[in-house]
Amino acid sequence: MNKKIVLHSLAQIALLEAVLMLLPAAVALYYRETETVKVFLIVAAAMALLQVPILLLTKTKNADMNFRDGVAIAAMGWIVISFFGALPFYISGEIPSFTDALFESISGFTTTGSSILGDVEALTKGMQFWRCFTHWVGGMGVLVLTVAILPSDKKSSSLQLMRAECPGPTVEKLVPKGKSSALILYVIYTVLTLIMVLFLVIGGMPLYDSVCTTFGTAGTGGFGIKNAGLGFYNSAYIEGVVTVFMILFGVNFNIYYFIVMRRFSAIFKNSELKVYLSIIAVSIGMIIANLMAYGVYNSFSKSFRYTSFQVGSIMTSTGFATADFDQWPEFAKVVLVMLMFIGACAGSTGGGFKVSRVIILVRTAKRNLRKLLHPKSVNVVKSDDKSLNIETVHGVSCYLIIYLLIFIASLLIISLNNMDFTSSFTSVTTCFNNIGPGLSKVGPTCNFSELSNLSKYTLSLDMLLGRLECIPILMMFAPSMWIKKLY
Amino acid sequence: MNKKIVLHSLAQIALLEAVLMLLPAAVALYYRETETVKVFLIVAAAMALLQVPILLLTKTKNADMNFRDGVAIAAMGWIVISFFGALPFYISGEIPSFTDALFESISGFTTTGSSILGDVEALTKGMQFWRCFTHWVGGMGVLVLTVAILPSDKKSSSLQLMRAECPGPTVEKLVPKGKSSALILYVIYTVLTLIMVLFLVIGGMPLYDSVCTTFGTAGTGGFGIKNAGLGFYNSAYIEGVVTVFMILFGVNFNIYYFIVMRRFSAIFKNSELKVYLSIIAVSIGMIIANLMAYGVYNSFSKSFRYTSFQVGSIMTSTGFATADFDQWPEFAKVVLVMLMFIGACAGSTGGGFKVSRVIILVRTAKRNLRKLLHPKSVNVVKSDDKSLNIETVHGVSCYLIIYLLIFIASLLIISLNNMDFTSSFTSVTTCFNNIGPGLSKVGPTCNFSELSNLSKYTLSLDMLLGRLECIPILMMFAPSMWIKKLY
Repeated sequence: MNKKIVLHSLAQIALLEAVLMLLPAAVALYYRETETVKVFLIVAAAMALLQVPILLLTKTKNADMNFRDGVAIAAMGWIVISFFGALPFYISGEIPSFTDALFESISGFTTTGSSILGDVEALTKGMQFWRCFTHWVGGMGVLVLTVAILPSDKKSSSLQLMRAECPGPTVEKLVPKGKSSALILYVIYTVLTLIMVLFLVIGGMPLYDSVCTTFGTAGTGGFGIKNAGLGFYNSAYIEGVVTVFMILFGVNFNIYYFIVMRRFSAIFKNSELKVYLSIIAVSIGMIIANLMAYGVYNSFSKSFRYTSFQVGSIMTSTGFATADFDQWPEFAKVVLVMLMFIGACAGSTGGGFKVSRVIILVRTAKRNLRKLLHPKSVNVVKSDDKSLNIETVHGVSCYLIIYLLIFIASLLIISLNNMDFTSSFTSVTTCFNNIGPGLSKVGPTCNFSELSNLSKYTLSLDMLLGRLECIPILMMFAPSMWIKKLY
Repeated sequence: MNKKIVLHSLAQIALLEAVLMLLPAAVALYYRETETVKVFLIVAAAMALLQVPILLLTKTKNADMNFRDGVAIAAMGWIVISFFGALPFYISGEIPSFTDALFESISGFTTTGSSILGDVEALTKGMQFWRCFTHWVGGMGVLVLTVAILPSDKKSSSLQLMRAECPGPTVEKLVPKGKSSALILYVIYTVLTLIMVLFLVIGGMPLYDSVCTTFGTAGTGGFGIKNAGLGFYNSAYIEGVVTVFMILFGVNFNIYYFIVMRRFSAIFKNSELKVYLSIIAVSIGMIIANLMAYGVYNSFSKSFRYTSFQVGSIMTSTGFATADFDQWPEFAKVVLVMLMFIGACAGSTGGGFKVSRVIILVRTAKRNLRKLLHPKSVNVVKSDDKSLNIETVHGVSCYLIIYLLIFIASLLIISLNNMDFTSSFTSVTTCFNNIGPGLSKVGPTCNFSELSNLSKYTLSLDMLLGRLECIPILMMFAPSMWIKKLY
């Protein structure tokens, strides 16, 4: 990798973050939280002082980056932004342990939403705002944001960065220029965010609460500002709005672009969208049946309200909870755990394995079985009318293998905590897939504070691995990424 | 498929089973269990009366079978043998529910070793013998046995049958003729069995106990004849012998053939053997460290004794238990669950995903990561010096996908039982991988009798799917297997 380019980009990202910190500072100022204002200004100033010289020193003219540079910037950019993002929590003393502050920051930016905080309401308004805001920033992608707003006319650079941050099974550019694609994504993202805030305010939610809740929803994150979560408001309207928007933010953003461009045929052909919505519908149906059979709630409408919210929340990897689903019967829980693995659509703000990958895997398996039955027939794996090439199919299979290996290694480390199997298993599931809550000791009413530091760092790494879909982080461990022209 | 050939082979298998039932009948006669003798003789006679006409009616001259016929015989042959194998349990009334009897029979033939019996010692000696003997028959394969002992001079037939029953990632024939390969395998199997019986008898175990224990070990099954399992004998020598032989029976039988043929270089090149032994050694080390840290046993030698036995038992998919490992600390349990998935070597009597497949998957992932780093380099996945072709790699990936899909579907059905997540998860794990015990409510001191009939049938299907490595059973669900010349 070209260290100068990488360093330059990292400095840009950190500087951008320093600017973003002025927003929580302003919120804190509004609520007259002088201490919090100071913390954000000091951290932002220190970051600027540190980064500006680096920016100037690493300035190069003909700096076209390759895939390796993009990967390095993605992997280290996310670590940089998480590290600096943890500083306000730590320096203010609102999260006294640095490990915890870093866990919370990584959980925020990766839009996981797992927390080490027992009492969220104890945070100052400014700090709560920052915590939720990290979801919004991380949701659409830190590098996408960098590409969208920083001046650059190098096509290849922006594309490399966007590819490294959101690999997905098939990356489609909306428009030929990467920068324009990034801008379009952020415009759609911002508009949807504003609409949601509006809906919540209309429903009687205070503006501050609406904005923070929307950040958590838009980034499919899951951090909230109340200890009781969204249950605090006890409003079917608010839960309904959040449910709908969670599901909307779990959709591939290309779909919204197609809507704007009136390319409706492209939408109807999109099998990922169909499967995504079908899985949600079927899961809601199965869980309601299960809850009714066990008489968990006394009416169908109540079952529907809690189930649709929870399915939307878990499937999109948001992780909000309005019910303690850890108390639900086992079948409902297993359905939720299954949804944790599937995740949202590729190209959305959601996490998990991604619906499109699941589709490719199932079709590959089907094709293979068919081939065994009819050895002479020609079978290709299709996705949306286009037949996928063998490289894509192979890539998804490899991703599955890597995914499983990381999962197993993490589970082994987490099990050293000596929690029960359900807690160990779902804590890795929920962090690696960027959901938030798990089952048992990491269920929706619990938090991650009791875990050992080793576990917290492991889960933090899992969150980063999950958000960046493994490959960039893993590539950083290869010596050849660091040594120049070895081969 | 050619229905005449398939029916003929199924009748052959059933007739063979009728003959095999004379063995438990003889044992029952020796112990003067008149009722049990009667049951076996009646069942065997009824089977013979039913099968002989079928055999005569379906006799054909030029009957060369293809892959589909082999698959159909494997899938249905295992169902036939399990069904008839359940009859003695059921007719004698020793297992009053037919669902339970079938579960026990399938668990036996597939060498799983999961039981619905709370009190094994209540069975008559003849029935106990039959229960353990099913392990031995199923271990090396019912079709392999058929090929080995029944007269047939059609090369292709025997090969198709052996391929269908033990697909594995790479099928190697020992000698050009399938029938000879099958015979060699059974000779090795029998000799190893006799040696083990000898070792146990020398250690002071009664002959009957030795034979039954050896059946469970040789087939990597796990059924025993004492409620306390092997802990009953409380002998480090016996546990040591069983440990060593479990590990030996988990090795690819080709290795023993190579030893007999003095082809030692082929053994040293075998990476599956190395990885298999390394995983066992590392797992023992990790679990001992974990047990010592928690002070579970008061000495290293005790920790070593229980750990090496348990690791050998789980890794080879035998499922014997000398300790209630459900009480061990979480890390040790997670290691054991991981071993349940890995399983033994391909071409052994053991179950699970198979070490060789794990090797191929890990190498595929490595190769893919390397390819991302060095896009221009040519990388091939290697196995034992031979580079594997893309078809094999693709086949293993597909197997992984199918494996996971079956696992998830089974887990969903089992969760309807409303046991805790750990019990649901490990009951599928242990049955699908043909191990025996799981954790929590299906732990080594518990049994499967409390499950619903739906769960028992699901787990029975999982055992068959696991033993036949999914494909044959799945292919039976394809309509084109049944309808002639549709395409």
